[in-house]
Amino acid sequence: MQKEFIEIKQLYRNKEQYIDKTVRVAGWIRTSRMSKNFGFIELNDGSFFKNMQIVIDEKLENFKEVGKLPISTSLLIEGTLVATQNAKQPVEIQATKIVVEGESDNSYPLQKKRHTVEYLRTIAHLRPRSNLFSAAFRVRSVAAYAIHKFFQDRNFVYAHSPIITGSDCEGAGEMFRITTLDLNNIPKTEEGKIDYSQDFFGKEANLTVSGQLNAEIMALAFRNVYTFGPTFRAENSYTGRHASEFWMIEPEIAFADLEDNMELAEDMIKYIINYVLENCPEEMEFFNSFVDKGLLERLHKIVNSEFTRITYTKAIELLLESGQKFEYPVEWGCDLQTEHERYITEQIFNAPVFVTDYPKEIKAFYMRMNEDGKTVRAMDLLVPGVGEIIGGSQREERYDVLMDRIKECGLNEEDYWWYLELRKYGTATHSGFGLGFERIIMYLTGISNIRDVIPFPRTPKNAEF
Amino acid sequence: MQKEFIEIKQLYRNKEQYIDKTVRVAGWIRTSRMSKNFGFIELNDGSFFKNMQIVIDEKLENFKEVGKLPISTSLLIEGTLVATQNAKQPVEIQATKIVVEGESDNSYPLQKKRHTVEYLRTIAHLRPRSNLFSAAFRVRSVAAYAIHKFFQDRNFVYAHSPIITGSDCEGAGEMFRITTLDLNNIPKTEEGKIDYSQDFFGKEANLTVSGQLNAEIMALAFRNVYTFGPTFRAENSYTGRHASEFWMIEPEIAFADLEDNMELAEDMIKYIINYVLENCPEEMEFFNSFVDKGLLERLHKIVNSEFTRITYTKAIELLLESGQKFEYPVEWGCDLQTEHERYITEQIFNAPVFVTDYPKEIKAFYMRMNEDGKTVRAMDLLVPGVGEIIGGSQREERYDVLMDRIKECGLNEEDYWWYLELRKYGTATHSGFGLGFERIIMYLTGISNIRDVIPFPRTPKNAEF
Repeated sequence: MQKEFIEIKQLYRNKEQYIDKTVRVAGWIRTSRMSKNFGFIELNDGSFFKNMQIVIDEKLENFKEVGKLPISTSLLIEGTLVATQNAKQPVEIQATKIVVEGESDNSYPLQKKRHTVEYLRTIAHLRPRSNLFSAAFRVRSVAAYAIHKFFQDRNFVYAHSPIITGSDCEGAGEMFRITTLDLNNIPKTEEGKIDYSQDFFGKEANLTVSGQLNAEIMALAFRNVYTFGPTFRAENSYTGRHASEFWMIEPEIAFADLEDNMELAEDMIKYIINYVLENCPEEMEFFNSFVDKGLLERLHKIVNSEFTRITYTKAIELLLESGQKFEYPVEWGCDLQTEHERYITEQIFNAPVFVTDYPKEIKAFYMRMNEDGKTVRAMDLLVPGVGEIIGGSQREERYDVLMDRIKECGLNEEDYWWYLELRKYGTATHSGFGLGFERIIMYLTGISNIRDVIPFPRTPKNAEF
Repeated sequence: MQKEFIEIKQLYRNKEQYIDKTVRVAGWIRTSRMSKNFGFIELNDGSFFKNMQIVIDEKLENFKEVGKLPISTSLLIEGTLVATQNAKQPVEIQATKIVVEGESDNSYPLQKKRHTVEYLRTIAHLRPRSNLFSAAFRVRSVAAYAIHKFFQDRNFVYAHSPIITGSDCEGAGEMFRITTLDLNNIPKTEEGKIDYSQDFFGKEANLTVSGQLNAEIMALAFRNVYTFGPTFRAENSYTGRHASEFWMIEPEIAFADLEDNMELAEDMIKYIINYVLENCPEEMEFFNSFVDKGLLERLHKIVNSEFTRITYTKAIELLLESGQKFEYPVEWGCDLQTEHERYITEQIFNAPVFVTDYPKEIKAFYMRMNEDGKTVRAMDLLVPGVGEIIGGSQREERYDVLMDRIKECGLNEEDYWWYLELRKYGTATHSGFGLGFERIIMYLTGISNIRDVIPFPRTPKNAEF
């Protein structure tokens, strides 16, 4: 039956083909306005951000019934597509037949009046039917595809890194434990410790915080790879920027140094923005009008700018010279806070900036040590309005140096046996970075809370739907 | 630096452009053969299934050193691309300069001799460098992209269903518990029960077994959606067909019945196969020669066949009429076993077969009840060589009927409040199905063990790498 009902998107995009012809559509009532003898229904069928206006009048057999239907009722409609004089709504359907597929109810919570996003989160099963969330989740889908297309067009292999992991190798944060042990009756060893040998995987297991180490395995076989999958943080963080479950993209490239890495990141960011601007014009217009007035200007500026590259040491100098007062004082060795990052990208450069070569103390063990023995070949990409959006590095490819760093960081070298072996059997210069998928969606839409760019967000004390 | 090194894939695909020119490549030694005055290195750079033959001779400054390098050493090579008389290897590089990027070691475990797949699983960090696994994981990547492309070209929204879930709504199998409670000191309520209010999500939380119910939310907002993400089963199953962590594709379509659903499934399967045949010809040739001799013939046949559609009742009749003896006896009401499924698709039809309208007792509560009150609008797709590869249904869209089924199945209606509300606020005929991603990769490659189509498989007692 579905093919009988043409998508409203098609009726807008290819209207010449359908004007003055009989068409059938199926969708949900967003709003309706009724007079005595005629009325208008704004119908949305989910295929397109915009509604189709359905004109009904007394000639319609069930005119009276249809006029009283509650919002969100689903309808099957037959009628004639006609051109209008209205540029914003260049076509409408004069209905000749309407079948009620599923009548809604006046208790429908998404009435026309404005709701808070906080309230809408409590009805995550209905909010995708609102303008804001239909736009957000479509942009999310299109951006995800842009990412796959960007990498696949460049012959990257999409590598699925594991979700369940036997160790916290990266130490990137608090992890969720996975178990099938009976929590009412946890088996113990003779020494009184938890007997994980009886657990499902025969040892402690957690949800992954990053697929990077696995991606390195793949890059050293396939040259260029990327991951795109869910990652997790069991942090009791209630900010609008943190979720317990989020998706990450982690490209990893072999025979490639930090310069290649930055070039890839810049190309990717620009590609995603361009792709979404091109493929979601109605949604982006909506965000620009109702969420963030400067959005389109900012995004167009980004895709047309050269990203700046400076070292961490230079960034510290510039911050100190600026005379600006910060909540967190600036000195060489400090981790850059969001206030510092935003000052650099917004005030100093007014453009995206790669900051490179951070002090080793504030970066991970696997980043390549520079000749100075003090800094590592890390890079963070800072963008106006957000701060850090990408973090990456050239990886330490030298067996001995890596081993020293593992020991220096107090890590257990046995946990890294295979990671070390990658440096033993044909090591190669390689680099990679991580992009939080939700961060880029927030950046693309202007939406400020991460809970509103994830269909069913997971945060502390919240795993509904 | 990476752009200096052209991908070997390019040198094969666009060889006319490069013949007799100086080129630079970077890759790993797969094998080498040395004579006194010259030698051959088979170099693989990961960009392509096939190796590039590197010809070296005494004119090379470090000829002697290079000749002795162990397998898997990484090299940076400059030389001239020259045409050969060998159709299988139409080009080779006459090296003028070779830099050793990372010397390997004679203890490298992936020597030329044949290894068992069981052994290779223990070196999952190196096996992607073998022919079998480089082919398997590239096909995996290309098939994943084919799936995204298929749906996005058709205006489907990619919906991320949650990985962490607050309830086992589908009851599809044993689940993994997620917790941040201290297992050495589990908090208890006054009644002595586990105090999940102190757990991270404030209640029991598990890893998802299916994104379907969430996908239904999205389909009733966007018309056509699909999920593509990891799902989990905590089943102590040691077969070659089951993993604890695997990826699923779950399309869900609104204003669409079971016929639409079957059409979509058929189109999708054919699209994936065609896309992989077209984009991975070398890999597919390899599988056909070394893994499954009938593979290409079978796949070509599938894409050119019409899939048959029969009811479960008819299938039972045909099985009974066949006179074939089965391990599990056949009678109306029984669940079809793999032996039955394969007999139907291989012996009776010798083609893919949709079996529809199963007894309600052996299918899930959400499938649409038929008028007979005994069967539901389910469909399974059976394919030769495998049996069931897709399972789906038209969903019960009638509030009252769904409520009755929830009660009949002994489920708790409060757990389904939002799922029921979808039927209250503008319900619509809708349908969907699930495809196990690894199943289709096994089908595409002929690889018989699921552990060998997942880069880092998770199975009972195994969460290495």
